[in-house]
Amino acid sequence: MSAASIKQRLLTPGPTAVPDAVLREMALPIIHHRTAEFKAVFKRVSDALQRLYRTSGPVLTIAGSGTTAFEAAQVSLVRPGSKVLTIAGGKFGERWQDIYDQYAPYLNIEQIRINVPWGEAVDPAAVEHALRQNPGISVVTLVHSETSTATASDVRAVAELTRASDALLLVDGATSGGAMPGEMDAWGIDVLVTGSQKALMLPPGLGFVGLGERAIERLSQVKAGPCYNLDLRRWLKSWKDGDVPFTPPVSLIRGQAVALKMIEDEGLDNVWSRVRTLADASRAAFEAMGLTLISKSPSDSVSGAYYPEGVDDTAFRKALRENHGIHITGGQDGRGAKWKGRIFRISHMGYVDAQDTLAGLSAIEAELRHAGVAIEPGIAEATARALL
Amino acid sequence: MSAASIKQRLLTPGPTAVPDAVLREMALPIIHHRTAEFKAVFKRVSDALQRLYRTSGPVLTIAGSGTTAFEAAQVSLVRPGSKVLTIAGGKFGERWQDIYDQYAPYLNIEQIRINVPWGEAVDPAAVEHALRQNPGISVVTLVHSETSTATASDVRAVAELTRASDALLLVDGATSGGAMPGEMDAWGIDVLVTGSQKALMLPPGLGFVGLGERAIERLSQVKAGPCYNLDLRRWLKSWKDGDVPFTPPVSLIRGQAVALKMIEDEGLDNVWSRVRTLADASRAAFEAMGLTLISKSPSDSVSGAYYPEGVDDTAFRKALRENHGIHITGGQDGRGAKWKGRIFRISHMGYVDAQDTLAGLSAIEAELRHAGVAIEPGIAEATARALL
Repeated sequence: MSAASIKQRLLTPGPTAVPDAVLREMALPIIHHRTAEFKAVFKRVSDALQRLYRTSGPVLTIAGSGTTAFEAAQVSLVRPGSKVLTIAGGKFGERWQDIYDQYAPYLNIEQIRINVPWGEAVDPAAVEHALRQNPGISVVTLVHSETSTATASDVRAVAELTRASDALLLVDGATSGGAMPGEMDAWGIDVLVTGSQKALMLPPGLGFVGLGERAIERLSQVKAGPCYNLDLRRWLKSWKDGDVPFTPPVSLIRGQAVALKMIEDEGLDNVWSRVRTLADASRAAFEAMGLTLISKSPSDSVSGAYYPEGVDDTAFRKALRENHGIHITGGQDGRGAKWKGRIFRISHMGYVDAQDTLAGLSAIEAELRHAGVAIEPGIAEATARALL
Repeated sequence: MSAASIKQRLLTPGPTAVPDAVLREMALPIIHHRTAEFKAVFKRVSDALQRLYRTSGPVLTIAGSGTTAFEAAQVSLVRPGSKVLTIAGGKFGERWQDIYDQYAPYLNIEQIRINVPWGEAVDPAAVEHALRQNPGISVVTLVHSETSTATASDVRAVAELTRASDALLLVDGATSGGAMPGEMDAWGIDVLVTGSQKALMLPPGLGFVGLGERAIERLSQVKAGPCYNLDLRRWLKSWKDGDVPFTPPVSLIRGQAVALKMIEDEGLDNVWSRVRTLADASRAAFEAMGLTLISKSPSDSVSGAYYPEGVDDTAFRKALRENHGIHITGGQDGRGAKWKGRIFRISHMGYVDAQDTLAGLSAIEAELRHAGVAIEPGIAEATARALL
């Protein structure tokens, strides 16, 4: 078949595929942000985000990437002169450590780090120990679904510990929000951050910050730090007026309203269940092909496996793209591991269904076999289908 | 005529109207940012931005608003322990002062302010005096086109002064870049910042930072401050690899490539001339209607006038929208003036032509007359047309 006939399927863990209805909404003529029309859209988005987060508190919509939004939470909520406890086991957890390193000399912060091996989740007992050994921790950072390692943490257990202390729990939910079970209020998460380009089915460009009661109280206690755009006090104040402090990405926010409506039409519990099923089927297919998973505590939203001996990452992913239109992601290097060229990852979150996943797994099997890996033909597809 | 038949025309100074071709480009299926396809788009945008800025240096593309981009320049380039000279005569100039206020205690900055009355441009002699009186100024901030007051500054004259000193000149070109003559290299501007939603004909969501040689040198001399996302060193390093450090707003960047191509097809000098002509015609029409301009040094990209006695801002702009589909902007309050309810502004930049401008002026005349202002019927349209 000619290359021109191949449809492109994005199975990367962000950006993910964007539904046609969302793309069309974003293509509508631009409206001004200081209008009743835009305010109505913004309210629909804010209300839907509260339901998605399972919170009665504010969820702020910030222009930028997920990193922008998480950094805003980090700098706005830390108490100057305090300690922070940062938990990392992958690229993103390490990034939040880097960010506090950057602010540490200015805010007189001492950083207590828990670094777990990549692919493992933190043991809540280690968090409990660190909280007990280090009085004066004002913030704990935790990644719910660590995209780089396809690993899920037990946010609920950690939140139980932080709730009993003065420390606020900042959860990076970039690839868990809207993909995996998460209950901001019921679990007692103080701050939950997601991005638009993952499970929320939008192009990149928006970050979302949910604030619990304790976080709002902290904002009123702590003086604004060395930041302006990223100062959450400013965003919270505007949010209360149904507004944003700076010109917002109008077209993205309109698209987000449509994408959130699609999630609600499907039902959030159904979305979670779909993502879980696609993940289970994919991991079973990986193991049926003899691959080793990269995570001992797999996340639902993304799955990863080590390459078998002799498979070249660049050539493999190029063949997936060119021969099958399947886009997946490789590995990343960080302080805890060097995974570039050693692993691959596929996403289950956002606008992806059983057929997309089967197409991805079937293509992966075909190209692994083409690279010389001994796999029984059809085993990936058959194993996955039995679970879908 | 029924309200449903009215077409909407955005004559607001940001967001401005977005061309259909740009909207359609943004509605194409999403692509991943770590692909040759996206890198090619990003290079087209980066190259076109250099031509737009008239610079051979890098122009960085940052997710967020114009404020995000300007704050990044402010925090990344200031020397800790130095002085900054901030020139303000409107809402945006005051914002850059607020931002340095926020960082001052952390970076040990002393802020020297030149505050001119709203609607006036700074006298370069005052800048020269301030630079001479205050040794150790490491950064000067200046707004080229102050949107809130429709006022243009003599950037070229100020750049001549800063070039002769150790101070870097940070120019807010949010509503001048792509609208008014500006020559980054020839004038010796060290940093030039614009936003996507003004003359660049895109929805909001991107900020652009051009860096001159002295700015790049400063980045290598000064240690990164209390910032991560906003640290320009990180963006510059990625830019050199044809990349961005964080997941970029892919769809906006694709749209920007198309919008920049449209500007080049028209010819940048022709764009500048068109904007200037629309501004001249609008100001002549304002004066023919007996209105007083808000600026003594008018910017080409936006024009403003005081309301005559008895015209209610809210009712007037509502009537423009509902009866004519014409969207304009009111005034803002700041430290230097309270202009909310006292003035209105219309934009000449971006995707706007003679017919749009005539429609706006004609509607403004009709609604002013409706509000009881004595104006000779047709004078606005006739005056403007004679100049177009």
